[in-house]
Amino acid sequence: MNFFEIFKKDNGSKARLGKIITSRNTIFTPVFMPVGTKATVKAVLNEQLEEMGCNIVLANLYHLYLSPGIGLIKKAGGLHKFSNWPNSILTDSGGFQVFSLSGIRKIMEKGVEFKSVIDGSVHFFTPEKVIQMQMLMGSDIMMMLDECSTFDASDEVINNAAKRTLKWAKLSIKELNKSDMNADSKLFGIVQGGFNKGLRKYCAEAISELDFSGIALGGLSVGEERSLTVEMINHTVNYVDTSKPLYVMGLGDPIGILEAIDCGIDMFDCVLPTRISRNGSAFTRSGKINIKNARFSDDFSPIDEMCMCYTCRNYSKSYIKHLYKNKEILSSILLSIHNLYFLFDLVRNCRLAIAKNNFADFKNEFIKNYENK
Amino acid sequence: MNFFEIFKKDNGSKARLGKIITSRNTIFTPVFMPVGTKATVKAVLNEQLEEMGCNIVLANLYHLYLSPGIGLIKKAGGLHKFSNWPNSILTDSGGFQVFSLSGIRKIMEKGVEFKSVIDGSVHFFTPEKVIQMQMLMGSDIMMMLDECSTFDASDEVINNAAKRTLKWAKLSIKELNKSDMNADSKLFGIVQGGFNKGLRKYCAEAISELDFSGIALGGLSVGEERSLTVEMINHTVNYVDTSKPLYVMGLGDPIGILEAIDCGIDMFDCVLPTRISRNGSAFTRSGKINIKNARFSDDFSPIDEMCMCYTCRNYSKSYIKHLYKNKEILSSILLSIHNLYFLFDLVRNCRLAIAKNNFADFKNEFIKNYENK
Repeated sequence: MNFFEIFKKDNGSKARLGKIITSRNTIFTPVFMPVGTKATVKAVLNEQLEEMGCNIVLANLYHLYLSPGIGLIKKAGGLHKFSNWPNSILTDSGGFQVFSLSGIRKIMEKGVEFKSVIDGSVHFFTPEKVIQMQMLMGSDIMMMLDECSTFDASDEVINNAAKRTLKWAKLSIKELNKSDMNADSKLFGIVQGGFNKGLRKYCAEAISELDFSGIALGGLSVGEERSLTVEMINHTVNYVDTSKPLYVMGLGDPIGILEAIDCGIDMFDCVLPTRISRNGSAFTRSGKINIKNARFSDDFSPIDEMCMCYTCRNYSKSYIKHLYKNKEILSSILLSIHNLYFLFDLVRNCRLAIAKNNFADFKNEFIKNYENK
Repeated sequence: MNFFEIFKKDNGSKARLGKIITSRNTIFTPVFMPVGTKATVKAVLNEQLEEMGCNIVLANLYHLYLSPGIGLIKKAGGLHKFSNWPNSILTDSGGFQVFSLSGIRKIMEKGVEFKSVIDGSVHFFTPEKVIQMQMLMGSDIMMMLDECSTFDASDEVINNAAKRTLKWAKLSIKELNKSDMNADSKLFGIVQGGFNKGLRKYCAEAISELDFSGIALGGLSVGEERSLTVEMINHTVNYVDTSKPLYVMGLGDPIGILEAIDCGIDMFDCVLPTRISRNGSAFTRSGKINIKNARFSDDFSPIDEMCMCYTCRNYSKSYIKHLYKNKEILSSILLSIHNLYFLFDLVRNCRLAIAKNNFADFKNEFIKNYENK
């Protein structure tokens, strides 16, 4: 059985319909993957995720390594057992976290040294070690260690980061082939290269030549204008092996997802839906709203009249505003359920549209409604 | 149909088995009622409460009056509709909150003046007004306005508070009879009298003479030793009309519940199970534990091996400790589900024991296990 299979391509765009088969389950693509950084998608229960049709979540090696520690997760019987999640888990290597969260870090050819945000202790990640640790956790899809650059990095920095990432890519594949620990853990390569088209092309081709199960585009959605993100995705996709699943890391706003699918991207993840929930925001078909708004005080309609999520079927904006104002945990729970469902539903509708060859229409219609709020 | 019916009395104690019938549903007693102060039982969904067999929750007039306001709840179609809770709701009048939370308050014969904790604005509650407002919300069981005294109050203060409470009791009944707004809202009287036995007897008899649907014991569980609480309950119960449901307000630790049932009490409420959850504590058959304890780091067993709650069926102490340590909302959710279930289960087992005439044995056995931790 192939790990990835494309069974339909849209007529009017690069969008495609496919499926990923892990040892856990089958995941239809395009797919939105909610982020459970510390082995919990914030404020929701696994059962609620499953009810919403979620069959793959993210977890983060960097955070889990610091707490509770990989040894403990191994002892628990792996990450699935530890967190009681029966479906697939994609683990990020933590490259992004090391580079963005760590105040003091030292990049070396062999890996990266960083200080724990918890206790200041010093740690060292190598391409080999992050694979070993992800395997120990029983990850279904592992990410290689990469070096991310900031949006404003100099050409030299971006160039060095991209080259080091390619070097680490080869070491990662070597480590994977050496290991007989867990044949079920698939490894994805990461294309870096900042916003330099030549470098992106170079990295895309180099990563495609290696024996990865999937290809991720890293270093995007880091503060740049959306049009630039889309331009870079579109450009990069031309040079990757499109027979593999393509994943844009850290992208998860509704329009961003549509644009990426349009470019032929199959997988997305983002903390956005759960993070904005804790700030009182909610996606609706006519744009994002914030529940704090005074006009919702006596608005007894659901967040989105068309939405079939648990929250919208049962609760009004007025009640959720009351909960939010009073700092009740239930507001985070209800908004997280809605915002996650909204994205699952959006991506499900994208799959339907691709199947019916009308993705472009669906996308344009959605954006028109979403932006004319 | 009677509002309350006793259909079995225990042979060896004053414990009794009964049912309360509201316009919403039937509630078997003894019953534990979780507290949803601001129209949400903290960190749990209504569906989860229903799954646990919960059919009555508390809400608090004082808090809801301040936010979102009674007018808004009325506009929403009542408290049940606003909070999407189909079963019964008991609303506390807020007497306790006015007296304990309000920094500046002025007690007058007609009622009590207090400042909002939210914006410092001045408000006035009268016995009549709290009934009107509870009716407007569509409360199933309303509490009269009472005056609570602190544990260390002087005899004079306690005496005046008790007498004022009795005066307000009569005004409450008068207001109830006057109203044709909501015949489905039943009103409970409250017995005050501090820790003065003579005064408790006097209040118990006076409240019993009035046409209340149930009788509550207030001003207990306010910091005194448990033996004194039990002594006061036991004493007071001798002088109340025991054909009515008897309710001890603010009591909700496992042993306290057993002792109160032993005295013939039918109803309890307490913030304890949800509050301790947010502090990482959990009830178990062998006593209370705190998940922060180092020994739980690699303890992959559930909180309580015998517990059939969702949390214990699915999650380990090790995982919950990890969540708690990382301030994940899910730790409050999982612990709240467990602690609430634990009390529902305890009270369910009490009902079974009363039915089988072995409540005393059940109680002694439970306490033995619970205290020999």
